[in-house]
Amino acid sequence: MAVSSPIKVGIVGGTGYTGVELLRLLAAHPAVELKTITSRSEDGVPVAQLFPNLRGQVDLSFVTPEAAQLEACDVVFFATPHGVAMEQAPDLLDKGVRVIDLAADFRLQNTEMFKSWYKMSHSCPQVLKTAVYGLPEVYRQQISQARLIANPGCYPTTAILGLLPLLKADSALVDRRHLIADAKSGTSGAGRGASVATLYAEAGDNFKAYGVAGHRHHPEVTEQLQMLTGNEVGLTFVPHLVPMIRGMFTTLYARILPEALDVDFQALYQNFYANEPFVDVMPAGSLPETRSVRASNMLRIAIHRPQNGDQLVVLVIQDNLVKGAAGQAVQNMNLLFGQPETLGLEQLALLP
Amino acid sequence: MAVSSPIKVGIVGGTGYTGVELLRLLAAHPAVELKTITSRSEDGVPVAQLFPNLRGQVDLSFVTPEAAQLEACDVVFFATPHGVAMEQAPDLLDKGVRVIDLAADFRLQNTEMFKSWYKMSHSCPQVLKTAVYGLPEVYRQQISQARLIANPGCYPTTAILGLLPLLKADSALVDRRHLIADAKSGTSGAGRGASVATLYAEAGDNFKAYGVAGHRHHPEVTEQLQMLTGNEVGLTFVPHLVPMIRGMFTTLYARILPEALDVDFQALYQNFYANEPFVDVMPAGSLPETRSVRASNMLRIAIHRPQNGDQLVVLVIQDNLVKGAAGQAVQNMNLLFGQPETLGLEQLALLP
Amino acid sequence: MAVSSPIKVGIVGGTGYTGVELLRLLAAHPAVELKTITSRSEDGVPVAQLFPNLRGQVDLSFVTPEAAQLEACDVVFFATPHGVAMEQAPDLLDKGVRVIDLAADFRLQNTEMFKSWYKMSHSCPQVLKTAVYGLPEVYRQQISQARLIANPGCYPTTAILGLLPLLKADSALVDRRHLIADAKSGTSGAGRGASVATLYAEAGDNFKAYGVAGHRHHPEVTEQLQMLTGNEVGLTFVPHLVPMIRGMFTTLYARILPEALDVDFQALYQNFYANEPFVDVMPAGSLPETRSVRASNMLRIAIHRPQNGDQLVVLVIQDNLVKGAAGQAVQNMNLLFGQPETLGLEQLALLP
Amino acid sequence: MAVSSPIKVGIVGGTGYTGVELLRLLAAHPAVELKTITSRSEDGVPVAQLFPNLRGQVDLSFVTPEAAQLEACDVVFFATPHGVAMEQAPDLLDKGVRVIDLAADFRLQNTEMFKSWYKMSHSCPQVLKTAVYGLPEVYRQQISQARLIANPGCYPTTAILGLLPLLKADSALVDRRHLIADAKSGTSGAGRGASVATLYAEAGDNFKAYGVAGHRHHPEVTEQLQMLTGNEVGLTFVPHLVPMIRGMFTTLYARILPEALDVDFQALYQNFYANEPFVDVMPAGSLPETRSVRASNMLRIAIHRPQNGDQLVVLVIQDNLVKGAAGQAVQNMNLLFGQPETLGLEQLALLP
Repeated sequence: MAVSSPIKVGIVGGTGYTGVELLRLLAAHPAVELKTITSRSEDGVPVAQLFPNLRGQVDLSFVTPEAAQLEACDVVFFATPHGVAMEQAPDLLDKGVRVIDLAADFRLQNTEMFKSWYKMSHSCPQVLKTAVYGLPEVYRQQISQARLIANPGCYPTTAILGLLPLLKADSALVDRRHLIADAKSGTSGAGRGASVATLYAEAGDNFKAYGVAGHRHHPEVTEQLQMLTGNEVGLTFVPHLVPMIRGMFTTLYARILPEALDVDFQALYQNFYANEPFVDVMPAGSLPETRSVRASNMLRIAIHRPQNGDQLVVLVIQDNLVKGAAGQAVQNMNLLFGQPETLGLEQLALLP
Repeated sequence: MAVSSPIKVGIVGGTGYTGVELLRLLAAHPAVELKTITSRSEDGVPVAQLFPNLRGQVDLSFVTPEAAQLEACDVVFFATPHGVAMEQAPDLLDKGVRVIDLAADFRLQNTEMFKSWYKMSHSCPQVLKTAVYGLPEVYRQQISQARLIANPGCYPTTAILGLLPLLKADSALVDRRHLIADAKSGTSGAGRGASVATLYAEAGDNFKAYGVAGHRHHPEVTEQLQMLTGNEVGLTFVPHLVPMIRGMFTTLYARILPEALDVDFQALYQNFYANEPFVDVMPAGSLPETRSVRASNMLRIAIHRPQNGDQLVVLVIQDNLVKGAAGQAVQNMNLLFGQPETLGLEQLALLP
Repeated sequence: MAVSSPIKVGIVGGTGYTGVELLRLLAAHPAVELKTITSRSEDGVPVAQLFPNLRGQVDLSFVTPEAAQLEACDVVFFATPHGVAMEQAPDLLDKGVRVIDLAADFRLQNTEMFKSWYKMSHSCPQVLKTAVYGLPEVYRQQISQARLIANPGCYPTTAILGLLPLLKADSALVDRRHLIADAKSGTSGAGRGASVATLYAEAGDNFKAYGVAGHRHHPEVTEQLQMLTGNEVGLTFVPHLVPMIRGMFTTLYARILPEALDVDFQALYQNFYANEPFVDVMPAGSLPETRSVRASNMLRIAIHRPQNGDQLVVLVIQDNLVKGAAGQAVQNMNLLFGQPETLGLEQLALLP
Repeated sequence: MAVSSPIKVGIVGGTGYTGVELLRLLAAHPAVELKTITSRSEDGVPVAQLFPNLRGQVDLSFVTPEAAQLEACDVVFFATPHGVAMEQAPDLLDKGVRVIDLAADFRLQNTEMFKSWYKMSHSCPQVLKTAVYGLPEVYRQQISQARLIANPGCYPTTAILGLLPLLKADSALVDRRHLIADAKSGTSGAGRGASVATLYAEAGDNFKAYGVAGHRHHPEVTEQLQMLTGNEVGLTFVPHLVPMIRGMFTTLYARILPEALDVDFQALYQNFYANEPFVDVMPAGSLPETRSVRASNMLRIAIHRPQNGDQLVVLVIQDNLVKGAAGQAVQNMNLLFGQPETLGLEQLALLP
């Protein structure tokens, strides 16, 4: 889409962690003009009062959605709870505004699945059909033409990008029916809502699994992998909560098929992602750590094959709030408006 | 008070951190029989389901206060929000039950001050007059005779025990009008209530002051120090929040008066606390760390006089949930029932 | 073994985390008399100076091994780097002293494997043959008769106890050749040695895998599982480092064989461990968290079968320093000296 | 100094935290060309291998100082242990290279004091006399003309900037002889060297004071304050270690003189720092938190006067690695080379 820079941007629901991360990235984005940010509960409060890291950098105050004049924006990001975007996006789309939804409203094309996992009927299935799943490494072309982008979930970004080279290969390489994603996330993934389970005194010095019986990101990964490969995929997904703020680490296990034991998986991955600015296939034997991408939009992958056996271990890391949420949304925005894909996303990771 | 062992114990409001810490200590206390624990919101839920560390050790389920038969207990601990104990304690006291309140209802004898800080009128000022401030190192004799004990606040325990040897001395040693308590607490001190400010992602990797303009524990310290010394006391109290679960560290500053520059403060403190089982005056030059008392009822004090000048620096540490709350309450219970003061409180601190 | 209480105990190499944890447990053990503790580097230093949590509770000072009179002990614990116990244990054993080694010297019966992983030849293979692997749930009878006990590694304790019910069953239940252990450990597992990788500023707010290409605990698990079941076992083992102090969480994956899809795995585990004091098979659907066993000797297991498919997920937690090291060693000592197995190990876990 | 952009930069000793932070800032600095970075121990190792956050962004490898051709640089940063810069800087200065030392070699003009605190004689007192203390808010003019800059210590930056408005006022406002700085630092301030005391398992979930008897930053603050005000200054300085990675919080206490009780201290500070790009005097009543400046060069100050009494409380925060070290060094470099002072330092703080 051609647009005269700067891109006029609105944010709906900016009081959570994806909201403040969007603000951090967009406030420093050279081609963006932040026009408005909405919050019903914080109406009138300066953004920099809620998020003191933005003091002196973001002068906006929160306004109600009604007062926000979102229709005057080129693009609106929804950083809202599930269910809000599908109510408000259709009207904005009708007015020619592009929409990037960071919630789950447009991620699942299967509306039955959506209803079953999110406990609400989809209110605009026709609009849903026009949504593009915002994973640039997979749908770059479609994103650049899209009007509505469903920004992927954080876990799915790691699982899909970590498994795709295996599943998209010309011939079957691994047992597609018994894939495992043992995923670990920092607590910011649970959001900024008041909650006992993510209190410092509860989540600190502690490690646990959750959602073992079922997690909303599971059908998202499965639907995408099946759409992209045309094959049935069986995935066991076990998320865990790590006592850290940011960071996501997904350990993927895939059993190599007997006929693929000679494949050079390191080369396979390197070739697959050779031209990707935000996917870094590390040298063989690497041990990535989440802090190496803290605050950056980079996702890193390392391939291991312990004892040269038939079990492939793929390690994937990202910052759950950047490549797993706000950074990927900005990457999508860049594609959408014909900007360099990396614009505003060049920050180096923070270590230590 | 004479009572046939075991002591029958009830707990009102056991869903917070002081509640679970009381349970941890009382479940292993050789002279205690845990009879009942109340929670309106968790009625019917096994205690060990809410607090899995107690699985297999505590068989009780939460009950409503109405069903709890608290009057059949020898002693009832209130681990409730402020305001609950003053409503329920009088009736229990009338029935001969001893009460130990871990909230603030009976800590301040000055009811105007109470109203001003806790935003509620005191409902039983006559009962309040009979309450004993449960700091055994100061009120041991009165505690053993008490019917109603006001368990001290966590910060006040450190500030009072850290300053008392200076202020109780025969002659004036320090400038009483310009005392400073720079206090630091782990996040469990903020309780187990859902709250944004103490989320892992908010309080982690972060340090801040709070309540600088005024904190409820300030008048508590001041009232006690003035009652105990008969002198006006001026204290600046600045609490800070530390990204850790348990632990409290209070750095006290007092300016030595010119006539007291020759005093041996190390000896003063050692003598003052020579016979205390739970106050450890460390050797000169010591640098205490909070983990050295993690999970234990010990409070440690170290005296410093940098460059041998006129500024005294007193470092005080405790576990805010043990000596700062539940452990001190058990210590009070022991005194109240003629048990050895250290019974059930001999746990060694956990390090690392 | 019959011995007049108290058991006279010596510790060799007590300056690490297993050493201080042994001290914490043994100092409070009602049937133990701590006789001596050695450290060449800290000779003459009071134990409580190095470990301030022991102030007032442990009066010993470190001594050199030569001065320690270990031969006068009933039992000597080695909390030393790998390679020390195999040099010193034979002499003590000859003098009738029982030895419990918390390092790896006597864990692997296969000396080739030992040499390959620990980069040293085994110095006393004959003594090694007499060693009993100190996992009470498996070798209780042998332990009670042993002279030399090899205390298991932390990871192996979780992996073996988590997989054994599946592998010991009468008929084959799972694909034994493709087991997966995705393990996560707190940083205390790396020991108290100065090291960049486990600095707070390196390991904090960070998550990473390590030892993916190979880890010393891998052959230990495999050797035990094969010895115990008589079958070849294929295990992929991926350890990760968690930004927490204590705690170990192992997520086990096993593919259920078609003929075993009707098995009630929850019942299988509950029956298998029905009489174990330190293995808690949690109710179906449970989500254990490491803090629920912090500072306790309990190991908890939860069984999951997501979407009722053919992938079994077994979650195992322990405190790596207690059931994973010092607590298990004390449990072994109790068995060895005819004491109640739980003596001195009844501490409730610390939460929060 | 006039120089054709880009500024050619060398770093000596880049394996510590100030080194990697310099790299993070300089790699993204639009007017800088990173020429070389030295490390004897890591000679030949790619920088991005040691610091994976720099993968794909910094292509340099470490070289020995001999091979580094530092003399071809416009400016050389020393991020070395104390004592290195004073050996190597004179030669570089002779060759016309500007030097910014992040260690302490040129911070104290009093060489006796230097020797007493750093346990080494100063090797080039004549060069020392030409050094400018690199605190731009105080010495901006001198810095722009300097050849050798002594980058301030982290604690001194907070203490000096926090106290200066009080002490530089035309008339005496506070008791200059009894100032208190109760300072708290994240563990990265202790550096990247292997050390037991800053292991995660030691420093985590723990709080302690250190250096109470004396700390090297104390004479640095005192010397500066005395030079800047021409008055004797008495300061009690107590540093503490916080279980966090980055961040510094200094709580300053100053007793207001009777004649100054009517002063508007909030206005005093606001006026004093009105034009400073990196000092943010927050609105009255503000409670700054360290994360609000995480990864940014901003220092924030909040003024409190509890109960409107005579005790002033000044809260100062910064990121110890940015404004407290590498960021301030870049700010100095900008001044030195006539660049906009904020160039390359506009990063928004990372929250959460």
